[in-house]
This record gives sequence, structure tokens and C-alpha cells, in this order.
Amino acid sequence: SVEEVKGYIDQHADELVQRLADAVAIRSVSSDPSRRPDCVQMGEHVAEWIKKLGGTVEMVDLGFQDEKTSPGLKLPPIVLGQLGNDPTKPTVALYGHYDVQPADKNDGWNTDPWLLTQVDGKLYGRGSTDDKGPLLSWFWVVEAFQKVGRPIPVNLKFCFEGMEESGSVGLEKVVEEQCKPGKFLSDVDYFCVSDNYWLGTKKPCVTYGLRGMAYFFLEIEGPKQDLHSGLFGGVVHEPMVDLTKLFAKLVESDGKILVPKVSETVRKLTAEESKTYESIDFDPEEFRQTVGSDRLSKKGKASILQHRWRFPSLSIHGIEGAFSGPGAKTVIPRKVIGKFSLRLVPDQDPKEIERLVQEYLNGEFAKLNSPNKMKVYVYHGAKAWLSPTDHPNYEAARRAVKEVYGVDPDLTREGGSIPIVLTFQEASGKNVLLLPVGCGDDGAHSQNEKLNRVNYINGCKLLAHYFEEISKAGK
Amino acid sequence: SVEEVKGYIDQHADELVQRLADAVAIRSVSSDPSRRPDCVQMGEHVAEWIKKLGGTVEMVDLGFQDEKTSPGLKLPPIVLGQLGNDPTKPTVALYGHYDVQPADKNDGWNTDPWLLTQVDGKLYGRGSTDDKGPLLSWFWVVEAFQKVGRPIPVNLKFCFEGMEESGSVGLEKVVEEQCKPGKFLSDVDYFCVSDNYWLGTKKPCVTYGLRGMAYFFLEIEGPKQDLHSGLFGGVVHEPMVDLTKLFAKLVESDGKILVPKVSETVRKLTAEESKTYESIDFDPEEFRQTVGSDRLSKKGKASILQHRWRFPSLSIHGIEGAFSGPGAKTVIPRKVIGKFSLRLVPDQDPKEIERLVQEYLNGEFAKLNSPNKMKVYVYHGAKAWLSPTDHPNYEAARRAVKEVYGVDPDLTREGGSIPIVLTFQEASGKNVLLLPVGCGDDGAHSQNEKLNRVNYINGCKLLAHYFEEISKAGK
Ligand SMILES: [Zn+2]
Ligand SMILES: [Zn+2]
Ligand SMILES: [Zn+2]
Ligand SMILES: [Zn+2]
Repeated sequence: SVEEVKGYIDQHADELVQRLADAVAIRSVSSDPSRRPDCVQMGEHVAEWIKKLGGTVEMVDLGFQDEKTSPGLKLPPIVLGQLGNDPTKPTVALYGHYDVQPADKNDGWNTDPWLLTQVDGKLYGRGSTDDKGPLLSWFWVVEAFQKVGRPIPVNLKFCFEGMEESGSVGLEKVVEEQCKPGKFLSDVDYFCVSDNYWLGTKKPCVTYGLRGMAYFFLEIEGPKQDLHSGLFGGVVHEPMVDLTKLFAKLVESDGKILVPKVSETVRKLTAEESKTYESIDFDPEEFRQTVGSDRLSKKGKASILQHRWRFPSLSIHGIEGAFSGPGAKTVIPRKVIGKFSLRLVPDQDPKEIERLVQEYLNGEFAKLNSPNKMKVYVYHGAKAWLSPTDHPNYEAARRAVKEVYGVDPDLTREGGSIPIVLTFQEASGKNVLLLPVGCGDDGAHSQNEKLNRVNYINGCKLLAHYFEEISKAGK
Repeated sequence: SVEEVKGYIDQHADELVQRLADAVAIRSVSSDPSRRPDCVQMGEHVAEWIKKLGGTVEMVDLGFQDEKTSPGLKLPPIVLGQLGNDPTKPTVALYGHYDVQPADKNDGWNTDPWLLTQVDGKLYGRGSTDDKGPLLSWFWVVEAFQKVGRPIPVNLKFCFEGMEESGSVGLEKVVEEQCKPGKFLSDVDYFCVSDNYWLGTKKPCVTYGLRGMAYFFLEIEGPKQDLHSGLFGGVVHEPMVDLTKLFAKLVESDGKILVPKVSETVRKLTAEESKTYESIDFDPEEFRQTVGSDRLSKKGKASILQHRWRFPSLSIHGIEGAFSGPGAKTVIPRKVIGKFSLRLVPDQDPKEIERLVQEYLNGEFAKLNSPNKMKVYVYHGAKAWLSPTDHPNYEAARRAVKEVYGVDPDLTREGGSIPIVLTFQEASGKNVLLLPVGCGDDGAHSQNEKLNRVNYINGCKLLAHYFEEISKAGK
């Protein structure tokens, strides 16, 4: 029975932690060209596990990254794996990513980010929760079924990429291609994505919505070279000054977006939707402590959740080309590229948002009367995603959660963006489920990223039940 | 005669270029801790030359840099050298620095910055003009006097540091100490500094003024860790947003400083001073082309010169702690440190400017109603410097220029800051002269820094004449 499967997982928990440590040790930072060999190694590591479990693997070669900005840099492969092809069983496809965010001990990590370190039941390490732990869980539950001699109740297809943290370069085309009749993903009945987190730290959830993204580059270019601020300061229009003027026009400290008409593109909040926030288990004070700010810019459960899930936000990330080191440098940078992004919601379209931002910033820049050259454009964009939840895929997931955790999961949305989720839904016409493993305080993309050991082990058990439940739903 | 000395220099020009290449090849970047051994090596290289020429050297050990920010990092030594101690001759002290700004081929250099490359009479390489070329010139003129068998008409004292590009850590204390009675610099009659540039590209000049500096760190700290903009964007007060709001309040695109009362601290422009700008050889259009902007923020010779020399400027240099790489990263940085600086003029005091900036930014930050923590302070400050020019030191320099170039030099000021110049003047009570070697388009601190070969060789000849002329002025 599934109980035996879960028993096997419990008995091998230490081994599963060690295997996660092996994966974390591979520094598969997709944004760092010098770490590209580690990304490729991590892709092979994942492929090896599929083969060890008796599956077949195709490594999709995506060719080279951007020839202009990164000449000669090969993309890490997409790993397409298959396990089982019983025509009587439904086929579940899993998406995950084997690349990770950058990490450096000096950025404020308490432990070596590449050495999985267990402290008080927490497994600290880059990629522990985003996304190596959740991705590997699928292998361990397959192994557990096999070891206890129980047939896996579904056919499995894996789709793992190594560029998620760098814009999922190449993935969308592959997914669209593989969803065509007769191709790898064409016979998938249900999609499941394990790349998000519980809302809080105590109650599990199942996720049906994501915000989209419009990531902007705001370039300002002036002098033909960097200038010494002593020799030239006072007589040149400095690109950095123009950039900060425009940055300051984008958003208020409290998060209010200043780009005109953006709020008009947001789907109206209905009374019906308003009600759904009431029952969700979310503690604003616990959330505030996770953030660590003295005060959040929104007050109350519903307002906070709505501003994370269903209203757009605008964040300013940084500047390329300006002085960024420690200490003092008296440079006037000749060209700076400001980086900011809007998280998009239904019914916003990245193209329309780009147009609004361009119209607004072109106007604001003209007011500066600067001889510098300004250009603003979307570097990558993606629409928000929403799934219906009255679907067997979601019902199976909710029953699986109840079996493992003894509670009904909250139905949640999330503020982050996983553009490929929308692609899976639109290219296949099938339902896509987000089934999170980690907690809301795991710190994906931050210093001291962690995955609770209990979430890791329960994540495996959750999948065991999900396999059982979805197999009952049939094809 | 001096003609023989100059002849020797001409005959050995290729050798002098090769020796500059040897020095440029030593990557003595003082701001990069990993290059500290190169800085020490460059200090030893300079000391070796003094010894080869028959001088004596003391290497002043400055101990460790900042134990908090750079634990275990030793400072490069100050090289104090002496050549000659004839009590009948005046003693001239020379200041220069053997460290350089960072440089990377990928920053936009057309040639390897560490391989001195001659193109069309220009010697390209980091440190060629700032300050290795001018510093080494002093050795070559000494050697030339010796080789043609002519006694050097002055006693020489050298004071060379290796931290000028990083705030001259430790130098001020050493100079103040060495100016005390009986100490190394106590018997110096004239100071000469070779660490600035001609105003333009054609006419030599002698420099009697420098702007000072107040380099500010503007720290804003909020969440306890970096946050994912998807999960947290919309409900937190982002430190980067607050920083850009404050940055935007500092200065207009046209350079107008917005900090109240700063303009009141500037010495008034008199009719007499106004007249001095008329005769200076300066081509605003040529200057604009050097900058490479379509349009400068000031118009006309006098206005441009005044805003570079005798009015303060405010430049925004960059941000520490924000995303600064290529590509896209969706981070909300937890803490950012904005870097900006004011170039100060008579009669501004860095302490007073710090107070004005703090008062203003504290008020502006309060208006943001942000829960983040803000702190703004001067990281390093220095007053402006002005020297009287009706002094034998300046008169000797002017005659030397006339001998080499056949024209009377312009008397100029400069917009940059060399804080130690003021210290020399105040600690010794002696006159300090700035005698530039390189051209206004040399690009110190920029990509493709260069020193014209002709300036390098004429710089040596200029010093030969300066030795002669200053020896006539006596002690
Ligand atoms: Zn992820
Ligand atoms: Zn991620
Ligand atoms: Zn210098
Ligand atoms: Zn310099």
C-alpha cells in the first residue's frame, strides 16, 4: 500500500538528504557563464537518476545562448525523461529546473551555500528549495514504489530545464513543439509543477495562479567614455543623474505605481473573489517577520495577499554600468542600464505595459532636457497565469495533501512568475497544477535559502498520494 | 649644459618608453585587494630606481588597511627617497603615486590596458598618464644629468604613495609627521606635484588650484535579507526605491545642486577673477568633443572653466548592494549604499557640507514615510586648495615651460582633488606647485587612458629646466 511506500521514504530519509547535498554541491548557476559546465553536469546528474530508475532520457540540445552578448556559450540541455507507458494509466508530466540562483558566502550566508547544512531541521543550501529538493523528490517516490514492489500508478514524463533562473531561454519553443500531435508531451493528461512555496510556514497549499512579468532595461547613454568627476563634474549631463530622475518617477516608497493607466489594465476585484481571501491561513505578522521590515506597505490579510497575487508591483533591481563595488570611485559612468520590473496580473499584457512605460518615460525624459540618449524596453515579458481549480488534477492534489498533512490545503496564488506554466496550459490544452513542497520562509533567491527536512520528506509522501489519487481520476 | 641633458633624453626616448611599459605592466590597482601584491611590487620597482640612481630610500610601512572591511590587508608602503644633500642647493620634494585605477579590457579598451601600446604617437595603457609616466620622468631627468656629467642643481626628495586612487590612506599622517622639525620633509624648500593634466591638448599650463571633495555614502536598509520580487513585490518598502527618490533630490540633469544653502558656501566671483578666464587657451568645442556629449550643461569658455574649477559639482557614481550584472535578476536588495560626491571649492568645508546634506536628506527621507533605515555620511572629505602664484616656485616653472614649449603657460586650476597638496602646503608652510605633464584628453580613470609620447619626453625636458630655474631662486 501507499503506507509501505511512505515507510520506505521515512527509513531512507538520511540517504535522501545526502542525495540532495550531492545535488546542491553542483554549482549550476545559469546566470554565470563560468558555471555553465556545472549546469551541464547537473543536467547529466538528473538524467542519470532517471536512467537508474529504469526510465529513458532525451537530452534536448538548445544550441548557443545569445551570440552577441555571450559568444560561444552553449545552453544547458532540457532533460526529457519517460518512465512507464501503460496505455491504461494516465500520464503525468512534471516540470522542474536544475539551475539555481547565484550565491556567495560573502553575501551574508551563515553557511557555505554549496554545502547542504542541516541546522534545527532546516537544510541550508542554494537550490535546496528552488528547485533541486522538489525536483529530486519525484525520483525518490518512484524509487520507493519500486523498492516496496508496488507498481507506479501513472506513467511519468519529466521536463527539466537548466535556464529557469535566466529567463528559461529556449524552453518555450521546445514545449510548444513537444505538445504537437505525436510528440513527447502530446499524450500528457496532467501537468504538475513543483517550483513554488507554501504561503506561510504551517499550512500546505495548492496553487492556481501566478503573476506575469515585464522586466525592463532603461538605458541612458551620454559621454563617449567614463569621465573623472573632478575633471568633468559640473559641465556634463550625467547619465546616472538622468537615470535616478526617471527611477524616481516609477513608483512610490509604499509601492504605488506611478506609470499612468497601468491600474486600468488590472482585472476588477469582485465581491466573490474578495471572499476567497477570508478563509486563507495567513498571518500578516508572521509574514512581516519573515520579511524583517518594521512595517509593510500594506495592512491586513486580504490587502497583503491581493497585492502579492492580483495587483501588479514594480521593483527596482539595480544598475548595470555604474560603480557597484565597495569603497569610493569618482567615476561619471558614460552609459548606465537601469533594471526594473513589473509583476503583471490578469488582464495585463506585457506589450501593452511596455507601451505605457515607454510613453510615460519618454515624456518624463523629455522634461529633463538632457542631451543624453534614452531607451527603455522589455527584456523579457510574460502574462500572468490562472487555472480553474474545479478539475480532477486539483482535486487529486487536495486529497493527497489531506492524506499527508491531515488538513485541506488552501487554494492560493503566487506573486512570482513561471512563464512556462502558461505555455504548458496553452500549448497542451491540459490542466496544470502547482504543487509546492517548501515553506514560505525558505528564502528562494536569498541568502540562507533552506528547505525544511520535514517538507522534503513529506513532499515525497505527497507525491506518492498524488500518484494514487490522479490514477483514480483516469486519463 | 641643459641642452646636453635634453639631447640625452631625445637619444634614449625609445628606452624611456620601454621603461614606462615595464611599469604599466605591473597591475598596481590599489582598490582591488587581490592586486595588493602588485602594488607592493610597484613600490619596490620605484624604490629600486631611486637606488640605481644613487639615492637612498626609506619604505614607510603603513600597517593594515581597515581591519573591519578588509581584514589582514596590508597597505602598500610610502616610498621616501633622497638624492643629494648639498647645503648650498635648494631642496625640491616631488610627490607622485604609483597605484592606478582599475582597468579591464572588456570595459571598452581598444588595447590591453596592461600592455603599453603606441598608436599614432600615443602611449595607451592604465597608469600611463596617471601617474606612472609623470612619476618616472623625474628619474629619467636625474639619469640624464648624471650621464652627461652635469651636477644636478638641486637636492631631491621623493614622496611616492600607492593608495592615491583609494583615498591616500595613511599618507596625511606621514606627511604631517615628516614635516616636523628635523624630519625628512622639514628642509624642503619647494614642493612639486606631477599628477594633473593640461587644460586642453595644445598649450602647457601650471596649476595653482584644486577642488576638494566630500564623498558620501547613502545607506538604506530594510528587510533582513534580499527578497524575491515576485513573492514580496507590492507589500514591502524597497530600499532601492527610497534610494532613487533621494538620489533624484540631489541634483538636476543640468548639474544644478539641489541641496539648500550649498551655493551660499561658495566664495563670490569677483570682477578681477572673472578677467583671468579671458586669456586662457581653452576651446569649448574641442572640450565637448573630448567628452563626447552632444551638448554640455554649461556654455562658453568662462562658464565651463568656472564650473570645473571654482563652483561645486555633484556626481552620482553608483550603488553598492543592488544588482549590477548583465542580464536580469529579480531581486529586491535588502540594503543599498548609494555613492555620490560633491567637488568642493573655496570656502567650503566638508564638515559643513556634510551637515547640510544630512539635514536635507533626513528631511526628504522623512517625507517618504518609509520604515527603512537611512544614514548618510561623508566617507572621505577634503577642502579645496589654492596657491599664490607670485612665488619663485611658480616663476621657475613658468620659465621652464617657456624654454621647452616656447610659450608662456596658462595659469590654471583643476576640478579634481588631490587632498595631500593642501597637507603639504599647510604642514610645511612652503609653496606647492602643480606641474602637469599629460594632456587634457589623456583619459585618466577612463578606458583607453594614454600619454602622448611627446608629452612624456618633453615632460623630462621640462623638469631639467625646472631644476635649473629653481636652483637660481635659491633656498
Ligand atoms: Zn524556481
Ligand atoms: Zn528561482
Ligand atoms: Zn593621479
Ligand atoms: Zn587618478
